[in-house]
Amino acid sequence: MTGPHPATAAIRVAVRAALAECDPGDLVLVACSGGGDSLALAAAVAFEAPRLGVRAGAVVVDHGLAADSAEVARRASAQCDALGLAPSSWATVEVAAGTDGLEAAARQARYAALDAAADRHGARLVLFGHTLDDQAEQVLLGLTRGAGARSLSGMPRARDRFRRPLLGVTRGQTRASCAAEDLTWWDDPMNADPSFTRVRARRALVDLERDLGPGVAAALARTADQLREDADHLDLLADQAVTDLGAGPWAAADLAVLPRAVRTRVWRRLAVAAGAPAGQVSTRHTEACDSLLTRWHGQGPVSLPGALLVTRSDGRVSIAASPRVE
Amino acid sequence: MTGPHPATAAIRVAVRAALAECDPGDLVLVACSGGGDSLALAAAVAFEAPRLGVRAGAVVVDHGLAADSAEVARRASAQCDALGLAPSSWATVEVAAGTDGLEAAARQARYAALDAAADRHGARLVLFGHTLDDQAEQVLLGLTRGAGARSLSGMPRARDRFRRPLLGVTRGQTRASCAAEDLTWWDDPMNADPSFTRVRARRALVDLERDLGPGVAAALARTADQLREDADHLDLLADQAVTDLGAGPWAAADLAVLPRAVRTRVWRRLAVAAGAPAGQVSTRHTEACDSLLTRWHGQGPVSLPGALLVTRSDGRVSIAASPRVE
Repeated sequence: MTGPHPATAAIRVAVRAALAECDPGDLVLVACSGGGDSLALAAAVAFEAPRLGVRAGAVVVDHGLAADSAEVARRASAQCDALGLAPSSWATVEVAAGTDGLEAAARQARYAALDAAADRHGARLVLFGHTLDDQAEQVLLGLTRGAGARSLSGMPRARDRFRRPLLGVTRGQTRASCAAEDLTWWDDPMNADPSFTRVRARRALVDLERDLGPGVAAALARTADQLREDADHLDLLADQAVTDLGAGPWAAADLAVLPRAVRTRVWRRLAVAAGAPAGQVSTRHTEACDSLLTRWHGQGPVSLPGALLVTRSDGRVSIAASPRVE
Repeated sequence: MTGPHPATAAIRVAVRAALAECDPGDLVLVACSGGGDSLALAAAVAFEAPRLGVRAGAVVVDHGLAADSAEVARRASAQCDALGLAPSSWATVEVAAGTDGLEAAARQARYAALDAAADRHGARLVLFGHTLDDQAEQVLLGLTRGAGARSLSGMPRARDRFRRPLLGVTRGQTRASCAAEDLTWWDDPMNADPSFTRVRARRALVDLERDLGPGVAAALARTADQLREDADHLDLLADQAVTDLGAGPWAAADLAVLPRAVRTRVWRRLAVAAGAPAGQVSTRHTEACDSLLTRWHGQGPVSLPGALLVTRSDGRVSIAASPRVE
């Protein structure tokens, strides 16, 4: 008797660990696109869940972004059926590109559809097939978006009921597992279209592995894990500091005693609480605020997005709306 | 009357900020290789220092690693003389590649020579010409090692008497400044030798900027600053936690209540304090230790470098030398 292919075995181990938090009778849903990652995940869940008394279903989301998307979704759904996943449902979503671009809009629509399906079926967990390679690409994308631990911390393993059990498994392993299990996966042609930042990140990762040696993807994924833990704790400390500070104005001395790593996060929180759009508050802004403490020489107020002014006066710092220019 | 080239102006502003901590009469030394970065720095220091009443000299270090290194050092030294930097000294060091490779050995010899020169001349500061591009390359190398915030925090702006005033200035700016000032810089042929990891990182950064768009280098440099602050604070919390924990064995519960970001750093400190060689304690080791808390099921001891065993027994964790195998 031979065991499963080593790649299949590795994926099953990862799935088993993810299902450990379930109780018998619980339902888990696999988010399946028909691509190699989620198909390998679906197969492993179909294998492992029954052994734990857990029910396993699938949700296929048709984004309607390509001419053949309904056909792709139909086939993925049929594959999930054949793997024994039930219920195997199929959601069609409408994607309207918003200000954050098509990828972000598609992602948002996908999460909403998956959440709705999970509610409908009473699912405990929804599992994604993102791999170590996806995580490494996410870290690289974080670099282009700016800075800091949070933007380099990639995708979480767990958030709400969503889980990513395959973040320690490579794309090569999911493909090898599919091949060994005789599962024909779908290659999304969008994965070859360099107008998508995700695709450029994938190419960048290949370049990095060539320039700096193999193991870069794994190192980036490890980095993400560690920076996420760092960011989680420093965010918690910043939340506590904001609670302790209470409503403004605040004594400059109370802000100045906070360690820099906490203080820059506190500035961001104070700005957003005062009405600054979160996505627009940059390091440049928090630095400018901090100069009211670290380079104080009686200077004027600092401007923040959302038409806010941060003012230091009489040893106290306040954030308020700019006076309207008539 | 025309002002200086914008690149020269930017470099002078950065130098002025770095010299602000000096008192009149102080001596600063520029570490100059004759390359574009340190030559642009030398010129800016020669311009700014006298305006602040600060004396400025230079040290050229000849690593003796190339056939023409003495000639390169002689020329750089003559350029520093011509810029009016005095004293302008010249140190020849012997580089013996150790276990960490030639680059590390050369760096160590360079620091020792610069420190000795600073002592001899009574210099307050020693200035390096590292740029934003160097910093970005450093972060990229850290990313690919996968070892957390500290290894991503790049080179410090200040350590002991060493300063890096140009970390916000690009290599393009130092070259443009040299050209505008009619300074002919030396291009180190080692900068084209891909057997050096530093050179491969430089190539990787060029690839990243092509794949993901310009601004990646700047984002990496900003990342370094923020992650350094994060690491500083988390290291401090870990130091405090270790002090609070006192001598082992330690109650598993006392370790388990620490946040993960602090706990992984505490494990590293406990291991090193028990005699593990600091350079050999990896994430894998601290993870294994942590599983004694997070996945406790009565398992056996965890091995650490330095022939140490971490054992949990009766709710207490201890680190001790492995019993000798006869």
